[in-house]
Amino acid sequence: MNANPKFLAATAHVDEAAVQPLPKSRKIYEQGSRPDIRVPFREIEQSTTPTMFGGEANPPITVYDTSGPYTDPAVKIDIRSGLPALREAWIAERGDTEQLPGPSSAYGQERLNDPKLAELRFNLHRKPRRARAGANVSQMHYARRGIITPEMEFVAIRENVRRDAYLESLRNAGPQGQRMFELLSRQHPGQSFGAAIPARITPEFVRDEVARGRAIIPANINHPEIEPMAIGRNFLVKINANIGNSAVTSSIAEEVEKMTWSIRWGGDTVMDLSTGKHIHETREWIIRNSPVPIGTVPIYQALEKVDGKAEELTWEIFRDTLIEQAEQGVDYFTIHAGVRLAFIPMTARRMTGIVSRGGSIMAKWCLAHHRESFLYEHFEDICDIMKAYDVSFSLGDGLRPGSIYDANDEAQLSELKTLGELTTVAWKHDVQTMIEGPGHVPMHLIKENMDLQLEQCHEAPFYTLGPLTTDIAPGYDHITSGIGAAMIGWYGTAMLCYVTPKEHLGLPNKKDVKDGIITYKIAAHAADLAKGHPGAQIRDNALSKARFEFRWEDQFNLGLDPDTAKDFHDETLPKDSMKAAHFCSMCGPHFCSMKITQDVRDYAEQQGVSEAEALKKGMQEKAVEFVKKGAEIYHRS
Amino acid sequence: MNANPKFLAATAHVDEAAVQPLPKSRKIYEQGSRPDIRVPFREIEQSTTPTMFGGEANPPITVYDTSGPYTDPAVKIDIRSGLPALREAWIAERGDTEQLPGPSSAYGQERLNDPKLAELRFNLHRKPRRARAGANVSQMHYARRGIITPEMEFVAIRENVRRDAYLESLRNAGPQGQRMFELLSRQHPGQSFGAAIPARITPEFVRDEVARGRAIIPANINHPEIEPMAIGRNFLVKINANIGNSAVTSSIAEEVEKMTWSIRWGGDTVMDLSTGKHIHETREWIIRNSPVPIGTVPIYQALEKVDGKAEELTWEIFRDTLIEQAEQGVDYFTIHAGVRLAFIPMTARRMTGIVSRGGSIMAKWCLAHHRESFLYEHFEDICDIMKAYDVSFSLGDGLRPGSIYDANDEAQLSELKTLGELTTVAWKHDVQTMIEGPGHVPMHLIKENMDLQLEQCHEAPFYTLGPLTTDIAPGYDHITSGIGAAMIGWYGTAMLCYVTPKEHLGLPNKKDVKDGIITYKIAAHAADLAKGHPGAQIRDNALSKARFEFRWEDQFNLGLDPDTAKDFHDETLPKDSMKAAHFCSMCGPHFCSMKITQDVRDYAEQQGVSEAEALKKGMQEKAVEFVKKGAEIYHRS
Repeated sequence: MNANPKFLAATAHVDEAAVQPLPKSRKIYEQGSRPDIRVPFREIEQSTTPTMFGGEANPPITVYDTSGPYTDPAVKIDIRSGLPALREAWIAERGDTEQLPGPSSAYGQERLNDPKLAELRFNLHRKPRRARAGANVSQMHYARRGIITPEMEFVAIRENVRRDAYLESLRNAGPQGQRMFELLSRQHPGQSFGAAIPARITPEFVRDEVARGRAIIPANINHPEIEPMAIGRNFLVKINANIGNSAVTSSIAEEVEKMTWSIRWGGDTVMDLSTGKHIHETREWIIRNSPVPIGTVPIYQALEKVDGKAEELTWEIFRDTLIEQAEQGVDYFTIHAGVRLAFIPMTARRMTGIVSRGGSIMAKWCLAHHRESFLYEHFEDICDIMKAYDVSFSLGDGLRPGSIYDANDEAQLSELKTLGELTTVAWKHDVQTMIEGPGHVPMHLIKENMDLQLEQCHEAPFYTLGPLTTDIAPGYDHITSGIGAAMIGWYGTAMLCYVTPKEHLGLPNKKDVKDGIITYKIAAHAADLAKGHPGAQIRDNALSKARFEFRWEDQFNLGLDPDTAKDFHDETLPKDSMKAAHFCSMCGPHFCSMKITQDVRDYAEQQGVSEAEALKKGMQEKAVEFVKKGAEIYHRS
Repeated sequence: MNANPKFLAATAHVDEAAVQPLPKSRKIYEQGSRPDIRVPFREIEQSTTPTMFGGEANPPITVYDTSGPYTDPAVKIDIRSGLPALREAWIAERGDTEQLPGPSSAYGQERLNDPKLAELRFNLHRKPRRARAGANVSQMHYARRGIITPEMEFVAIRENVRRDAYLESLRNAGPQGQRMFELLSRQHPGQSFGAAIPARITPEFVRDEVARGRAIIPANINHPEIEPMAIGRNFLVKINANIGNSAVTSSIAEEVEKMTWSIRWGGDTVMDLSTGKHIHETREWIIRNSPVPIGTVPIYQALEKVDGKAEELTWEIFRDTLIEQAEQGVDYFTIHAGVRLAFIPMTARRMTGIVSRGGSIMAKWCLAHHRESFLYEHFEDICDIMKAYDVSFSLGDGLRPGSIYDANDEAQLSELKTLGELTTVAWKHDVQTMIEGPGHVPMHLIKENMDLQLEQCHEAPFYTLGPLTTDIAPGYDHITSGIGAAMIGWYGTAMLCYVTPKEHLGLPNKKDVKDGIITYKIAAHAADLAKGHPGAQIRDNALSKARFEFRWEDQFNLGLDPDTAKDFHDETLPKDSMKAAHFCSMCGPHFCSMKITQDVRDYAEQQGVSEAEALKKGMQEKAVEFVKKGAEIYHRS
């Protein structure tokens, strides 16, 4: 560790690649009901349509932005200080928390007092907070008492992605305004399988969704740096990126860089799955610099504390770990409390047994002690910790299928049912809860997963890993799983846990992380489109208009990954002039179908018949006559 | 062109990367009812299971093999001579064709007699064949007369992928045989939406499917080099790779290499979409060296002949082009005969107009002449040419949507209906026919495409481009479309036309072609699994067993791309010894869940209770008692 000079705390610095604004993009903020509710967005500037296609100005597009202050040139980033604590006042003013003198977990104290760790340690001056005795500080608890928190308002503004402002800018676009509005705002009605997404998200809607458990806002009171976000079926589909060093390879520095890299490309939350030597310190660096919620699997660290011997795990060690991590600010914990003793034998006939690390640890513990899981037995004790810090449950699917063979089997579905029962218990404590899902599932068995989850877990948000739709493509499991992720997102999953090309093979590097994220942004967006999420099609429409009009730079910049799009284009047609060309390398100037379409339209225009007239004549019914009369119908409108 | 010394005919040579057998793979042949029906497969050798997991031998797996003789070390490849004409005798012995003195198209003769082309020209000694006057040489024609051709028998053997032999090898695997058979042969019942896939494909079944038009065997009598394959909803889902030079870039050499590269990774057919200067010569080189059917879009070349001026196209020029290409051996033609005059105005209000090159050419022609498409009006004349060479129709979707906005609109669906009418006409002539489909379609509108196609095109095979499920990811359209392709394949599409990462941006290089192919192999296989195609899960099961048992090399080799899987693994754990390690880089030795699962199983084994006993006791109902009694249930079977 110390061999990596980058990670001496005194000299730690941000990854430069993560702080450049994306091309033609700028950070904008929309203010809420009070000056300290400032919701960030990314605004993408567009160029004017070439004269041959109409010559209109194209208003900028606003997109959801997970990248935090990093992409705001106005913010000075110093990862040694961490991000500004934007929720600090919101938390303090609720008056239901107290500042502790220091970490209250034994392990947290031990690490803090170890002088050998000084040069690795993030230098945090702030003391941890905890709910006052008897208080419950979860967003769900507030929601159920009818309180709209600043977090909820933040989420509401964020989810609307300034859609109304964009549509207004279209309507106001001069003489072509109405035409542009109709073209660019149109969207297919979706099929949402019973989701209830309003045309506009209000703070009250957010409150209601959180109150009834259909959405969560992971927001630990010790992670005041986050920009609040919601995970729920009636919000935009979110994605999670996993990072984490391992016993074999990678360093703290790489993990912090993976976090900033992940959020740059669209990671809505990040799970820190570290298993190495300095888990505690790595986590602190990640949380202090993360504007997105951080999830962990506390059993991994608990196991480290007993030198990897699952049978030596105890509730006390696990409990201390929960408190340690809660006081650092972890926003959600994966807890494998559904791996019950009775279900373990159901995995005996499986192709791939138990593939979840957490699941297998608990299975080993249960068999070693011949008793029920301590996570299950202490579930209400865990709830007490969760609500004292507002850590959300991510109820782990420790028995998820690791192969197509094992999909939707009794072990998996028994655990799912238990997760539903535990959801009810968590909700009794007003603890925010989401449910983890598989895994490896062939396409035709995916919907059953979603339907059972909705029914048995009472619409608590579903958070799935893929699912992978085949086992036969190691090296491409971002794709095998991206297919399943898009589908289950459409059916109702609220957050998709990404899979990288390295799945099953090795640790992802930055390229893999980006490939995983972009694949999952595609899946999430395809799901939003299919659900008919209001406004989801705005970006598709804008990009397709740019594509049709050969606005190459706009096409790149409106895409999920402008850099790659531009590089790919330049590989074939490198000259700058080619980005103004009204044809592309696939067809060349003669064959370009878009050019021919436009030629056809121009030809029509020359006949001198106005748009309005052509439309009045009932274009579609009388098409043949029109064409015979002089092809006057061929123009965009 | 001449600047590329690789493509002087005298020195042309095969791409070395395309002729190496894949790791641990060997070419095997299964003989049919006569010695010249020798169906190729790839057999993947597996290693023995490590002792800790049972120590059994794992029989080799046979997979469908599109790579042709290239991957057979016993065959000497010389692309200057082309591949052996394995169907030559089958065609000749039917006695319904005649050998022509030379090309009968004007253009074919012109090119042959141009001395300047000598150094580019493939040196073909064989004369073209054509049906005798009044004869029909299509596979559909034979099928409808009850004749099972060698092509049909070849297809039947090929589609079964030697599954029975593999299952037999499992059953005979000694004392563990029954257990292995049960584990490795099990498959989820699928949801096929009305497909009728038999447990075993017989030659008679192939004949019947071809006769009723539900499948085609693209097999031009002038392409005797092909290894016959079928495209139909009741066969394995196929994929097509597009190659083609363009006016702006790329060369013949690159295109031939792309073909051999495409089939190496699993392209079932290849479309040559060249639009450059030496289309005719490029095509000859590709066909003579291609063991898979080759498709083209003849209107591209016809347009070249009129210097890119669509309005100057004539039926005579087009007809000559069809004959020219049919006599070279093109196996299927995309014909945009559904772009009728009446439909063109329907595209006026679209976001992206007409994005199909063929569609826009025909639209321009129709408007310029104010008359119905000559392709539509001469459709029966085209049928006469098709049946004289057994060229199959791929009825082009010239009005496919080029953006989410335009999906499933009136223009698209009107054309689809017309393609159904044309299918009836083609079938009247016993001409094999498949139907091209979109395009850009959000997930929830995909099934409507399939359902309408099945109904309106009378179950003729559907052949779709993706569909792309969102417009917003230029640079990743293999993925946006791989999602749609997997879904529409599941719903019933017979062949998926690949999309590469360069779609919309530039010309694909070899890496892009491979990325496109592997993505589409994933989509096709995921579709086969979801349909419940018999035996589809065999490879998933074998790979997952290898994965569970840490047989790293087997896991790589059973995958779609062993090279990439191995490279990815080695990036993290490069040492050879690590490929024997019973853990991987993601978790390291302590955390490995597979290892823990096996530890659990071993623990159970130590209790000394036999598998049979445990099973008898009704494991699942009494799980808790079992575990309490001593965890005796934890073993694989």
